[in-house]
Amino acid sequence: MVERRKPIPIHEAVQRIMAYPLKEKVESVPILESYERVLMKDLRATHSVPSFNRSPYDGYAIRSIDTATASRDTPALFTVIGEIGAGQVFKEEVGPNEAVRIMTGAMIPSGCDAVIMLELVHERSKTEIEIVRKVEQHDNISFIGEDTKELDLIAKAGTVIHPGVVAQLATFGQAEVSVASRPVVGILATGSELLEVNEPLEAGKIRNSNAYMVAAQVLRAGGVPLMLGQVPDEMDACMERIHNHFNEVDCLITTGGASVGDFDLVPGIVKRLEAETLFNKVAMRPGSVTTAAVKDGKLFFGLSGNPGACFVGFELFVRPLLRRSMRAPAHLPISKGKLGVDFPKPNPFTRLVRGKLNEQSGQHIVYPSGLDKSGSVVSLAEADVLILLPGGTRGYEKGADVDILLLNSHAGSDATWETFFSL
Amino acid sequence: MVERRKPIPIHEAVQRIMAYPLKEKVESVPILESYERVLMKDLRATHSVPSFNRSPYDGYAIRSIDTATASRDTPALFTVIGEIGAGQVFKEEVGPNEAVRIMTGAMIPSGCDAVIMLELVHERSKTEIEIVRKVEQHDNISFIGEDTKELDLIAKAGTVIHPGVVAQLATFGQAEVSVASRPVVGILATGSELLEVNEPLEAGKIRNSNAYMVAAQVLRAGGVPLMLGQVPDEMDACMERIHNHFNEVDCLITTGGASVGDFDLVPGIVKRLEAETLFNKVAMRPGSVTTAAVKDGKLFFGLSGNPGACFVGFELFVRPLLRRSMRAPAHLPISKGKLGVDFPKPNPFTRLVRGKLNEQSGQHIVYPSGLDKSGSVVSLAEADVLILLPGGTRGYEKGADVDILLLNSHAGSDATWETFFSL
Repeated sequence: MVERRKPIPIHEAVQRIMAYPLKEKVESVPILESYERVLMKDLRATHSVPSFNRSPYDGYAIRSIDTATASRDTPALFTVIGEIGAGQVFKEEVGPNEAVRIMTGAMIPSGCDAVIMLELVHERSKTEIEIVRKVEQHDNISFIGEDTKELDLIAKAGTVIHPGVVAQLATFGQAEVSVASRPVVGILATGSELLEVNEPLEAGKIRNSNAYMVAAQVLRAGGVPLMLGQVPDEMDACMERIHNHFNEVDCLITTGGASVGDFDLVPGIVKRLEAETLFNKVAMRPGSVTTAAVKDGKLFFGLSGNPGACFVGFELFVRPLLRRSMRAPAHLPISKGKLGVDFPKPNPFTRLVRGKLNEQSGQHIVYPSGLDKSGSVVSLAEADVLILLPGGTRGYEKGADVDILLLNSHAGSDATWETFFSL
Repeated sequence: MVERRKPIPIHEAVQRIMAYPLKEKVESVPILESYERVLMKDLRATHSVPSFNRSPYDGYAIRSIDTATASRDTPALFTVIGEIGAGQVFKEEVGPNEAVRIMTGAMIPSGCDAVIMLELVHERSKTEIEIVRKVEQHDNISFIGEDTKELDLIAKAGTVIHPGVVAQLATFGQAEVSVASRPVVGILATGSELLEVNEPLEAGKIRNSNAYMVAAQVLRAGGVPLMLGQVPDEMDACMERIHNHFNEVDCLITTGGASVGDFDLVPGIVKRLEAETLFNKVAMRPGSVTTAAVKDGKLFFGLSGNPGACFVGFELFVRPLLRRSMRAPAHLPISKGKLGVDFPKPNPFTRLVRGKLNEQSGQHIVYPSGLDKSGSVVSLAEADVLILLPGGTRGYEKGADVDILLLNSHAGSDATWETFFSL
């Protein structure tokens, strides 16, 4: 009567999904809208930086040789033959004992091989200065290509664009930037117990929180959530909603009905979609009843209705799919930590415990947050890590070394789960 | 001839700015748009969670006492008197040796005090089941308030809304969310050497990269950039642009012209705005010539034209002002690390070296990235930390313990710079 499902290890579930990558799509956006999008082309320097020899300071451009014998007692005298503001080009050749006043960022005039800072010069008059020390050749010159050379790789495809990358895009004239299109993720909440967020509470019912949570997870992963609303536990209502929107989405998520009970819709959805099941049980807690299936190159995920299980299912399985389609590091960043408390409960399945990270002298100490039950919604508010506790017959002691997945980072990891966790 | 400026320590510069907080403004957004906004009201539970005793599994709700003597040899027999789907309420009182089939999340019927999982029951028929073990009172019941109690604090004002918080907002019926308005930051690039991003390179000129970089920094801090374009080093053009937009912004940033040279506009802007100077030199590298001033409760920042200096000036001084106005943790998150290489160059001023973070077994190892010159733009592409090296007469050795500021985190710190770094 109860369908028997065979649980597969987490890394195998991830592998099965990643074997069906979403189609990469590229679009062009104005540089001002490029922040947090993902580069789809390697960014290479279109010219050297600096592209001309320039002064890093306000000062005087000179020929260093003219200071060879300069000292406090025998200052070198220079005639100031002009000035160069930033952006200007000095037309004349600078000769012996001639100086040009030069501003930060301006081009070194022809003939000069050094700059002396303003503060180190005695200005006798507007046209005459004294220098009381030897200036070395190449002092205070930023040379062509010193920072980077033409065609140097600046940022790889797959880089999530942060302010430092934006600066490069501008420097190299990318007013329009080739970025990954954001995959569209349909989100349908199922469950006869669900109320809309704005409805008053009723006996036996709860408000639909998973769909909104998943929408935010989609945004965090870089995708676009498409809300398909909520339906009761009725197959026809559910399939109608799915069929109406299947063409609009790159990937489809349902929450709820993922188990094997009489009211569980997910097995029926897979069947009616004529989708190929990739898995319907994973050896993990929470989220063991996560289902993944594929239909016409689109992935369907039947996530649990339990908030904690739904959350974890998304982060482990949906997130990497979305990120990979944008060439961004797919998985949650992985780090190491130490358990801050005993975790005595053993479990045959690998646990992903919602936890809080505390940094103490550069060490990550992690604490399970709130109630570690898959139905707990409150613990999600404060969790900033998932603590990985491999399954077994024993619990874990305070101080144990554990792997942790960082939730609130916009970075990512390409660490292969295959080698990292064989969980 | 050269204006003498008195450098102040970083923590004092931060203090002077934070003494002029921007006005807090609140707005209401639909829950679907609340991701990454900042909560402006404490979120408290509007009801207990669960709000009714419920079943965490598919199974049968029973009276545990009826299993007191159950064993493999003498199974307890139950009559199945009905079923409860999630969201339903069972109307009758359950009596001796009666069971109700119950779905995950459904309300425990009156009379029952335990649930036995489906897998552990032998279903003789649709109306008769056998139980072969003693079931303890309260087994498999999630009790009212087990997860959280009415009025419990769920998330504090100032929390940046992440998916886990969105789940709570939905659970507690917040279809509209009170969030901090995003401060508007005017950005004006100055410099006769500046080309627009889409212009071809010319001798002696560079493209305006700072304004775009700062715009992305404003977005990362949670603000709204208002691009005021770029102007040559001419005071009238500059002031016209500022006056035209001063009313629209909460805070104004110029890049370039921040030094003390003939073409430097910042001192003139402060004067013409009749603003009060908070500081015009900070004992740090890069960014020592950062200026901050206040006028009519709005802050004006004259950031350096050097990309590295501009970047650092924003993160240290502008970011906390913006974040504080939204009640979010103001400063960059602080962590500890170890230098991955020697850094032999001493400097009397505190350095903020752009660097790359490498995690090795939970330890942060940090490496200066690219050229550590304030004019370097390329090093910004790969930097994910600022390495703090207090000023002094000696350099630093590989392995030295250093403080680091994390750039790409969306978290933040309220650590007071006063106590943390007296730099």
